[in-house]
Amino acid sequence: MRTEVTLQGLQAALSPVRLARKSIGFVPTMGNLHQGHIALVREAKKYCDVVVVSIFVNPTQFGAGEDFEKYPRTLEADSQLLADAGCDMIFAPSVQQVYGNKPQLTTVQVDDIANDLCGKSRPGHFTGVATVVTKLFNMVQPNAAFFGEKDWQQLAVIRHLTTDLCFSIDIIGVPIVRDENGLALSSRNGYLSSEEKQTAIQIYQTLKMVEQDIKSGQTDLDAILQRGRDYLASKGFVVDYLEARTPDLKPVTDSQQDMVILAAAKLGSTRLIDNLHIKGIH
Amino acid sequence: MRTEVTLQGLQAALSPVRLARKSIGFVPTMGNLHQGHIALVREAKKYCDVVVVSIFVNPTQFGAGEDFEKYPRTLEADSQLLADAGCDMIFAPSVQQVYGNKPQLTTVQVDDIANDLCGKSRPGHFTGVATVVTKLFNMVQPNAAFFGEKDWQQLAVIRHLTTDLCFSIDIIGVPIVRDENGLALSSRNGYLSSEEKQTAIQIYQTLKMVEQDIKSGQTDLDAILQRGRDYLASKGFVVDYLEARTPDLKPVTDSQQDMVILAAAKLGSTRLIDNLHIKGIH
Repeated sequence: MRTEVTLQGLQAALSPVRLARKSIGFVPTMGNLHQGHIALVREAKKYCDVVVVSIFVNPTQFGAGEDFEKYPRTLEADSQLLADAGCDMIFAPSVQQVYGNKPQLTTVQVDDIANDLCGKSRPGHFTGVATVVTKLFNMVQPNAAFFGEKDWQQLAVIRHLTTDLCFSIDIIGVPIVRDENGLALSSRNGYLSSEEKQTAIQIYQTLKMVEQDIKSGQTDLDAILQRGRDYLASKGFVVDYLEARTPDLKPVTDSQQDMVILAAAKLGSTRLIDNLHIKGIH
Repeated sequence: MRTEVTLQGLQAALSPVRLARKSIGFVPTMGNLHQGHIALVREAKKYCDVVVVSIFVNPTQFGAGEDFEKYPRTLEADSQLLADAGCDMIFAPSVQQVYGNKPQLTTVQVDDIANDLCGKSRPGHFTGVATVVTKLFNMVQPNAAFFGEKDWQQLAVIRHLTTDLCFSIDIIGVPIVRDENGLALSSRNGYLSSEEKQTAIQIYQTLKMVEQDIKSGQTDLDAILQRGRDYLASKGFVVDYLEARTPDLKPVTDSQQDMVILAAAKLGSTRLIDNLHIKGIH
């Protein structure tokens, strides 16, 4: 496994891959890797000949007061995990490599779905994500790119921009990896105290409760979701949202249709997100 | 020369070109071609093995009340001109091919330089341009793309987005082609009456006057430009702007520096633009 830190190095390394007509699978990450990321790499290995993982903590997707500075940079441990998972190449550029010296004037904006849910409490976040993913897509020029379903809204934004901007890249969503208690793996779990970690599993519990209520035939979705919010608040969460959307993030009009329940809540200073896809009855 | 009207057709046609490691030069146009476009094709032929010209009247770069509907569609005449110029492939997609069936949520925005000059009087225009050029770049995946310097601001916007979004595409600006009277060739010249066409040459005359004033050592640039605006108005133009900028569209701080004089003015209902690059003394 090789590690490239410049665009020139990346392109030199990928050039023989392209000439050999091998397919390139791309897993963009911010590092501080866990088994959720590794599941993406394994999925990419199934689809593609060569797997490139980028490790780049992207400043433009962090808002003021968010954790850009303290976001863990753990390249050595990440490299070990990736080598074990069969990753072929790490691309770990500097901010200067990605954003250059001249002021950046260009942003990629995805309307509507980027302004809902997490977009409401994190203004500019998905513009930062969409812009850096567009840059990385153009740098790596992969055949397929792999994203975790934990960031369901991010995946929806990226699917949309890929189609809208006519990228010839397959976007593959990979199911959430959970720990033995059901907590969705996340780099931000590392910020939780052991007590908070115990509480954190209530997010998934709440999503399962909502699912059960829906599957038991209750039709008042607003009431179901409000009970879920109240439950989370009773456990000490500050709830940002608990909402139902169609898989492509449109409003749900029928309590028995295919839907995703999405949650974001703060525990202390740590913001956690999770979701559960509920297959519709009709 | 072949003509493709679908993305699938384009990609099938370009696939053997890429496999043969031939370079692809791309000339995006809205059709209704004239010798200014042909100069782009000839330049592309010099740089690249295969030249693709797109013909696509892009709805999203026309504002309300602009000439999208009446913009001339002249594919047959265009094809003849392009064949004669040595173009290898025309890509003439439908609006549906470029914008798809689903609502488009994604736009590419280039701040600052896109909000100046033409951007002021044509809100959203450069977002439409930047978005469609990003789409076309991803469809054609050229090695180099060729744009006329007549649309100096457009060229600056595209240079910026290409760098900012990390496209591996060389952007080549091609000098303005003028008729024997100095009128910059433009599809919109076709809207002018023969009398207006006589008047229209005064735009270039004005640019030359400004150049002469600067080269004669006059230093009050504001006064020089105001005389130019007054002159155009006296000839029957409604002046949108006559301004000086650095070549990358920053404010000019020294009347002897490298600069571009840019003009936009309406004659009747036809909006004309032109510019003149004045090489600085220091």
